Amino acid sequence: MRAFGKYLALSGAAALIASVAMAGGKPDAPGAAHFTDKGELLFPADYRSWTFLTSGHGMSYNAQANAAADQPFDNVFVDPESHAAFLKTGHWPEGTMLVLEIRRSTSKGSINQHGAFQSGDPVGIEVHIHDSKRFKGGWGFFSFDGAKPATMIGYDASCYACHQAHAAVDTTFTQFYPTLLPVAKEHGTLSAAYLAEEKAAAKP
Amino acid sequence: MRAFGKYLALSGAAALIASVAMAGGKPDAPGAAHFTDKGELLFPADYRSWTFLTSGHGMSYNAQANAAADQPFDNVFVDPESHAAFLKTGHWPEGTMLVLEIRRSTSKGSINQHGAFQSGDPVGIEVHIHDSKRFKGGWGFFSFDGAKPATMIGYDASCYACHQAHAAVDTTFTQFYPTLLPVAKEHGTLSAAYLAEEKAAAKP
Repeated sequence: MRAFGKYLALSGAAALIASVAMAGGKPDAPGAAHFTDKGELLFPADYRSWTFLTSGHGMSYNAQANAAADQPFDNVFVDPESHAAFLKTGHWPEGTMLVLEIRRSTSKGSINQHGAFQSGDPVGIEVHIHDSKRFKGGWGFFSFDGAKPATMIGYDASCYACHQAHAAVDTTFTQFYPTLLPVAKEHGTLSAAYLAEEKAAAKP
Repeated sequence: MRAFGKYLALSGAAALIASVAMAGGKPDAPGAAHFTDKGELLFPADYRSWTFLTSGHGMSYNAQANAAADQPFDNVFVDPESHAAFLKTGHWPEGTMLVLEIRRSTSKGSINQHGAFQSGDPVGIEVHIHDSKRFKGGWGFFSFDGAKPATMIGYDASCYACHQAHAAVDTTFTQFYPTLLPVAKEHGTLSAAYLAEEKAAAKP
């Protein structure tokens, strides 16, 4: 599976409403993200009302991964303001906040016989935020344990390097967002690294 | 797979904005659904901004289904007003409109090695609408071919009987919506048929 500080598929931090929490007289972020004085990210309680980008099932970037049928689903949401900006520009604005929600899958349940549906409460919530003043490289990852404020995942975690090396747009895995990949293509905002990988993969 | 007039997993018809299209001086529906004079449903162009309910992968209610790895995903959205009403009551209000969007899945793509992600344009869009004045039994199914207005699927299609017999709430498959099943339990709105099936399934 992707996720949990290993292979995050998220990105960004903007606002449902252009509200800013004030800390010491300064807004704490340009978008939907709000932080404690210690720099912990507050849980984005309303993310299920944000814009849905995609859902994957059992995704893994690791060739050795176990491909068991009960692999989790991951649902990706973005704050609606940043989504609207992306549609116009093909880039994520400052303040973009993407949420990756992980849920268990069930195959045999009710009348379902094959395939998988999502069940139960989330088993993980991870966030990727774009805030160039706050984060080295412009983006920070967080992983929530329930609704408690989350500490930033350190820059030495593999998620940062992997997103930098392989993500299609602004260090986000837009190649897995079917409604946004065409927007990025149209605006010419696909990263050079991603384009080079796709070109190499297309060779016979 | 579920869907395409065979095993629809959808339900309902309400409004992002409580707007009504006027036809002959009368509102055409209580919610988000709008119809032509011939009773065809107009394509709900903004459904991707509605509330996401869940995503399934390769779901099938047929024991003989092919469980191939490239089975499609289905994403379910509902108009936000009806979703808000469900959270308060555990029932879908008149005007509820649920959209089932079907997308192809890809396993090996970019750096993904296992599992599946969604790719490409939708390969199907189906809708379930609650409008007791318009539909026998209170609900109607539609299947879109692109963005052209859609004709109602006839009441003799198996989707009607299957939803009536097995769906957890108001003929909708709320048992597959992980955020809403607990709401229905709390409000005691699970159907007698669903509860009897779950009881029978739980027996050793």
